[in-house]
Amino acid sequence: MAENSPLVGIIMGSQSDWPTMRHAAEILGALGISHEARIVSAHRTPDRLYDYAKSAADRGLKAIIAGAGGAAHLPGMAASMTAVPVLGVPIESKALNGLDSLLSIVQMPGGIPVATFAIGKPGAVNAALFAAAILANEDSALAERLAAWRKRQSDAVAAEPE
Amino acid sequence: MAENSPLVGIIMGSQSDWPTMRHAAEILGALGISHEARIVSAHRTPDRLYDYAKSAADRGLKAIIAGAGGAAHLPGMAASMTAVPVLGVPIESKALNGLDSLLSIVQMPGGIPVATFAIGKPGAVNAALFAAAILANEDSALAERLAAWRKRQSDAVAAEPE
Amino acid sequence: MAENSPLVGIIMGSQSDWPTMRHAAEILGALGISHEARIVSAHRTPDRLYDYAKSAADRGLKAIIAGAGGAAHLPGMAASMTAVPVLGVPIESKALNGLDSLLSIVQMPGGIPVATFAIGKPGAVNAALFAAAILANEDSALAERLAAWRKRQSDAVAAEPE
Amino acid sequence: MAENSPLVGIIMGSQSDWPTMRHAAEILGALGISHEARIVSAHRTPDRLYDYAKSAADRGLKAIIAGAGGAAHLPGMAASMTAVPVLGVPIESKALNGLDSLLSIVQMPGGIPVATFAIGKPGAVNAALFAAAILANEDSALAERLAAWRKRQSDAVAAEPE
Amino acid sequence: MAENSPLVGIIMGSQSDWPTMRHAAEILGALGISHEARIVSAHRTPDRLYDYAKSAADRGLKAIIAGAGGAAHLPGMAASMTAVPVLGVPIESKALNGLDSLLSIVQMPGGIPVATFAIGKPGAVNAALFAAAILANEDSALAERLAAWRKRQSDAVAAEPE
Amino acid sequence: MAENSPLVGIIMGSQSDWPTMRHAAEILGALGISHEARIVSAHRTPDRLYDYAKSAADRGLKAIIAGAGGAAHLPGMAASMTAVPVLGVPIESKALNGLDSLLSIVQMPGGIPVATFAIGKPGAVNAALFAAAILANEDSALAERLAAWRKRQSDAVAAEPE
Amino acid sequence: MAENSPLVGIIMGSQSDWPTMRHAAEILGALGISHEARIVSAHRTPDRLYDYAKSAADRGLKAIIAGAGGAAHLPGMAASMTAVPVLGVPIESKALNGLDSLLSIVQMPGGIPVATFAIGKPGAVNAALFAAAILANEDSALAERLAAWRKRQSDAVAAEPE
Amino acid sequence: MAENSPLVGIIMGSQSDWPTMRHAAEILGALGISHEARIVSAHRTPDRLYDYAKSAADRGLKAIIAGAGGAAHLPGMAASMTAVPVLGVPIESKALNGLDSLLSIVQMPGGIPVATFAIGKPGAVNAALFAAAILANEDSALAERLAAWRKRQSDAVAAEPE
Repeated sequence: MAENSPLVGIIMGSQSDWPTMRHAAEILGALGISHEARIVSAHRTPDRLYDYAKSAADRGLKAIIAGAGGAAHLPGMAASMTAVPVLGVPIESKALNGLDSLLSIVQMPGGIPVATFAIGKPGAVNAALFAAAILANEDSALAERLAAWRKRQSDAVAAEPE
Repeated sequence: MAENSPLVGIIMGSQSDWPTMRHAAEILGALGISHEARIVSAHRTPDRLYDYAKSAADRGLKAIIAGAGGAAHLPGMAASMTAVPVLGVPIESKALNGLDSLLSIVQMPGGIPVATFAIGKPGAVNAALFAAAILANEDSALAERLAAWRKRQSDAVAAEPE
Repeated sequence: MAENSPLVGIIMGSQSDWPTMRHAAEILGALGISHEARIVSAHRTPDRLYDYAKSAADRGLKAIIAGAGGAAHLPGMAASMTAVPVLGVPIESKALNGLDSLLSIVQMPGGIPVATFAIGKPGAVNAALFAAAILANEDSALAERLAAWRKRQSDAVAAEPE
Repeated sequence: MAENSPLVGIIMGSQSDWPTMRHAAEILGALGISHEARIVSAHRTPDRLYDYAKSAADRGLKAIIAGAGGAAHLPGMAASMTAVPVLGVPIESKALNGLDSLLSIVQMPGGIPVATFAIGKPGAVNAALFAAAILANEDSALAERLAAWRKRQSDAVAAEPE
Repeated sequence: MAENSPLVGIIMGSQSDWPTMRHAAEILGALGISHEARIVSAHRTPDRLYDYAKSAADRGLKAIIAGAGGAAHLPGMAASMTAVPVLGVPIESKALNGLDSLLSIVQMPGGIPVATFAIGKPGAVNAALFAAAILANEDSALAERLAAWRKRQSDAVAAEPE
Repeated sequence: MAENSPLVGIIMGSQSDWPTMRHAAEILGALGISHEARIVSAHRTPDRLYDYAKSAADRGLKAIIAGAGGAAHLPGMAASMTAVPVLGVPIESKALNGLDSLLSIVQMPGGIPVATFAIGKPGAVNAALFAAAILANEDSALAERLAAWRKRQSDAVAAEPE
Repeated sequence: MAENSPLVGIIMGSQSDWPTMRHAAEILGALGISHEARIVSAHRTPDRLYDYAKSAADRGLKAIIAGAGGAAHLPGMAASMTAVPVLGVPIESKALNGLDSLLSIVQMPGGIPVATFAIGKPGAVNAALFAAAILANEDSALAERLAAWRKRQSDAVAAEPE
Repeated sequence: MAENSPLVGIIMGSQSDWPTMRHAAEILGALGISHEARIVSAHRTPDRLYDYAKSAADRGLKAIIAGAGGAAHLPGMAASMTAVPVLGVPIESKALNGLDSLLSIVQMPGGIPVATFAIGKPGAVNAALFAAAILANEDSALAERLAAWRKRQSDAVAAEPE
């Protein structure tokens, strides 16, 4: 496998999820983590999902970040077909504001875990940070970059509102 | 295909869904509709789901009734892999009473339909009646049996409470 | 009955539901399925509903798609008065975003089924696709058109977001 | 019309609603208001509902109390077919605890009102008290009985818990 | 009491409720029912509420329509202090879209009824129509006007969407 | 005023709230804070509420803990009629589990505050502890007793589950 | 401690909470109560929170008003580390409109109280008024200013809508 | 560090969470992953939480599984004080069935991630499986044990219900 083959795969059900999911890509980029982004629809391209999930481990992925909205099946179905840890991001939906997305992702039955994050952009950011934390367990340089990122975040909190 | 090969397939994610889903089987049986019941877990047996859905049309199924609870992905994933109409039954879940199951089934994105019914037993009964109504469109004998079933139901409504 | 008498009836409670329900009409049109669209209010024109539902089977309808919002009674009341399969589309309501519409349609008691779809446009699209799937059970030419529609949909999913 | 022909009609969708709705009957009885109780299912006996609602005014009913659960269409459909004031009581449903019943009754579109009360027994009690208040507007003897009932209720509130 | 002393009182918790509640006033006006509109805040002017409710019956009011939002206490507190029927209209609130208003009004304990209507404008319209229906029980001229209003409403429903 | 006239008043809408509210009394007792408990129904005894709230400051109360369920108006109405701080405890209701109680208490409009605590027993306990904290601001002996109570609570947390 | 050292501390999780929380500051200012405003993030600056909470009592604070949104941990964590009364304000969140903020603040376990107020601006206003009411228990001049503020508020309620 | 120093820490807010969280311990035990279980209350023992979180990385923990209910602050506060990945399990709460717990854990702001799992037992099971998947990224023997566990799970799904 090449040095910079992706360690984290970002998948999403539709092009319309990208404005949310690109925040995950940006965090991974900022932390120097190789990644890829693909559109994989559980419903419209189930065979593509099958292929992606089944090959994920062999391709060297250490985490899959999956964003989906409404009856959001992408994270759970990916998790059912790979041993790679799957991180789910509920996309904010039109009518129900992402509550449907959240419940469709987080309420997985015992046996097939999906690590779920907040609805929308905060969830995408945090899924990427969490993927980084997983990798940092075994990569001290990344751990330092992540610690630095968090320190900058803390330092950026002003003392008083204005 | 044999005369009494199943026209309707009932699938469910787990043995624990059977106390709900058997009501669908009973209605189909009462209406003389050949059917089968299988446990097919979207999450624990994704390959079994793939095989079931991909072969459904060739096996002569005219409708699939799929029951699932929590992050209920079975109906939607079956619908993504077959042209056979899929009817979803949200199983009443422990913590959220089936609201998670309902939203996970009904809020499908445009393009892949799942006909959704009520949470729990009423949904299982109605999915079976709806499958019968589909078949009755082209089967006048069944249409008469269904009409008789509904007439008996109406006649059974007492005039006054007691 | 004339060759192109409607096979699918689209009914809705109010003119204001048309921006949602016209998506059902467009899908049916694209698939070459004869259909009609009518405003039938369960509450403001109950006699019109009675007439529509009672005559639906004789007029050759094979499915009724009923859209309604808020305390959405149109799909369920239509279903109570006809043997034709009724497909319900919850219209997004103002205050509660269609959650009231959804529950008023999907939580039918055992005995009178309404096949329910997602809130708003995705539900209208999917109700039409589901009606097509019912008809395609007995119409191989339609089945091919529907399969082609779905294939185009799958092919249209880009590989990567941009 | 005979002196004691009913002034208030209590209708409900099913025998299983009677344990809730009998509280309405008891209040009406305690206040000396002539009433009747009927099972009228919007879904299973739509023709019975049609007859009941269309004849209500001529039969001298001054109020109809309608209890229903789940996708509760009885109160709204009765209101669409009569000028008699309709009072709706949401029955506590199994999975969603009556939230579906409540929204299905109260969220009526502008034009056809249903006066809605609380979920379950408190709603049945209050619908009866409200019907009494309507009648008491024109019946001073009843107004006195109602005032006495309320005074007894207030007097029965103990000063301290025990 | 003068011929045109008000029969219906419209009260609301704040000036900001008037854009909703004026729809009730317009319906009453269109039906020729004398009415008044007052701002009475349960929380900011409890003494004004006390005076209004305690004098309502003597002033000849036959119904009070009370609109309030959030922790909406106005309808219930008015009902606790008068025998005049109280009709509650939940105002659409900012954060929770009126679900808080609805529950705060409709979930009254057994003993003190508030007839509750839909959130927002439809509720205001329907509360007025319901007040008219109460009065029409004893006023045949009003009953005719109300029937004409409803007939015009039904006639205004177009046959087909456009 | 006598030395042990009550500093905290506990009021509740009904005898049935006492199993929840007695936990507030027990905490106050354990901390040596003089208190009283009264049944005061906003709906059934509005005059009693008026008297209680209007006299609270003169009677030396420093806090009122008000428990109520469903359309819970007691805390907010008490707060509208007194300058004494009012602490609200949502009682767990039958159908909606106290969500209605919570929203009816916490969503007060700007201008009349009610300090709201958790649904049920935890809320009753915490309202009492909060009342103690208010009093402890000016009573160092009580502050010490409260600190000791909290220390005992912390010390009682076992290190490991068993 | 200097004469005008702050009696009330306003803390919030982020600069973006200030448009809500400044309403608390304005009320405190209008009532002549010395206060301070700080950004203290439970998640991004936990050490700052630790320092703030642990020193609050010694610095003379009599109340802490804490605003936070989403998984809002700031009020509860502050309360766990100080004996000073903590007042929580749920900030309106993007996807779930502050329902998540509300539940995260109000549903504290028995033992550590947080006095919770309404979502958004009304909650910020009321938290400040409540803090004033606490202080007014022991400060008769403030009590008079607070009574005057409330009287002006009541007087400002117009008699009729326009 | 000793060979079998714990790799995964299970913490929970109270002894009463153990019946849920012990399922996480059992899974870890079955997979041969060294772990520890501690009671650490964010609210009642904030200092213990501070110590646990701050020392977690140095003690060699690769994941922390944190269970909490109601206003569930334990997972988020742990995550704010350590770089070790934190997995949150919402405990089913009494009044709101764990919906409060879920939202309090999952809706973390961008910057501090908590990987959230389902309410109750399924969440505890899945958090443990997810921790195993993280560790299995770098431990092929564990990866094989985990794959075997999942295969046994799949094989245990019966073909037909009974």
